Amino acid sequence: MRGRNKPWADQFILDHADYLYHQETSFLNNQETYLEVGIGKGDFIIQSCQYYPHVNHIGVELNKSVFAIALKKIVNTNIENVKLLQVPAAQLVELIPHHSISKIFLNFSDPWPKKRHARRRLTSSVFLSVYDNIFKGDKVIVQKTDNTGLFESSIVSLSNYGYIIEDISLDLASTGMENSLTEYEAKFMKLGVKINYLVAEK
Amino acid sequence: MRGRNKPWADQFILDHADYLYHQETSFLNNQETYLEVGIGKGDFIIQSCQYYPHVNHIGVELNKSVFAIALKKIVNTNIENVKLLQVPAAQLVELIPHHSISKIFLNFSDPWPKKRHARRRLTSSVFLSVYDNIFKGDKVIVQKTDNTGLFESSIVSLSNYGYIIEDISLDLASTGMENSLTEYEAKFMKLGVKINYLVAEK
Repeated sequence: MRGRNKPWADQFILDHADYLYHQETSFLNNQETYLEVGIGKGDFIIQSCQYYPHVNHIGVELNKSVFAIALKKIVNTNIENVKLLQVPAAQLVELIPHHSISKIFLNFSDPWPKKRHARRRLTSSVFLSVYDNIFKGDKVIVQKTDNTGLFESSIVSLSNYGYIIEDISLDLASTGMENSLTEYEAKFMKLGVKINYLVAEK
Repeated sequence: MRGRNKPWADQFILDHADYLYHQETSFLNNQETYLEVGIGKGDFIIQSCQYYPHVNHIGVELNKSVFAIALKKIVNTNIENVKLLQVPAAQLVELIPHHSISKIFLNFSDPWPKKRHARRRLTSSVFLSVYDNIFKGDKVIVQKTDNTGLFESSIVSLSNYGYIIEDISLDLASTGMENSLTEYEAKFMKLGVKINYLVAEK
């Protein structure tokens, strides 16, 4: 289960602290950096790291047990272009250098369906202003979700914030697009659930 | 059937020429004017005329048989705040005064699914530039469609043209929103087909 406590998590994270992101010492190169906010169990970011070996990747996940599972997978795959942060997304502005990120991926984010929680959605203006600070040059957000409410609210929020919707699909699987699957997505596709997808640029 | 020739259409249209729109003589008042491009059999525009009795309505439909059916319904309902044009949408720029329209409705427009026909879609930049001329003040486009491809391409086109997506639903029926039904929509809703809806403003 997603949230179930993993007693081994703390020690495992400590033992692999070299995978944690630190702005002073990580990615001291001139490569682009992609950020995934909410990596879940890590399937997407691992595939992206393998697909783009010359792109740095920062993965953020707040849930410690899920974070530890993702870390374990990453340790096993031996990829070197990824670092992780176990922090709330609102803190990224202090932890990631300004003007450093070229693309942000939001995969199957928490939909926060209640109106009074709208600001907690990762595409609310609260987070778009966090991203504004860490983005470098063109701002590109790529979102995937099976949640219609989150998707609708993201389109309105991004559009009102000055983003242009450059690409969109209400059924990503039908496009035949090359696509790194998250663990959710693989499950949803088997069930025939349609995945919403967009690319927004500012 | 939608396209079947109606032998009575020509004479009926001639007999009710007072319902045809002429920029010199129609709507010489200070009311707002809504435009529906592609009125089909007219159900939506008739409901809108009844719901907004103090708004002028211009309805456009190219297909003569369908146009005649809509006209017949309008004649029978005795509404006075509607005038019709049986012309291609590209000609609106010559037939409707510039700066005169406050809202444009695009209901179940032809999806033109082939990429090489993309410019024919009523939300392509070709038509958005026509609308630019006839819009007055804030430009508001309201779209409904069951066609996913048309909806996706409309979002990208509107967004790239400077419109902000102010409201969107991938399942209009689920919103409980007050909504004038087109004849298509009533049929689709019975079949459980989801209707996409958006409001874009520039």
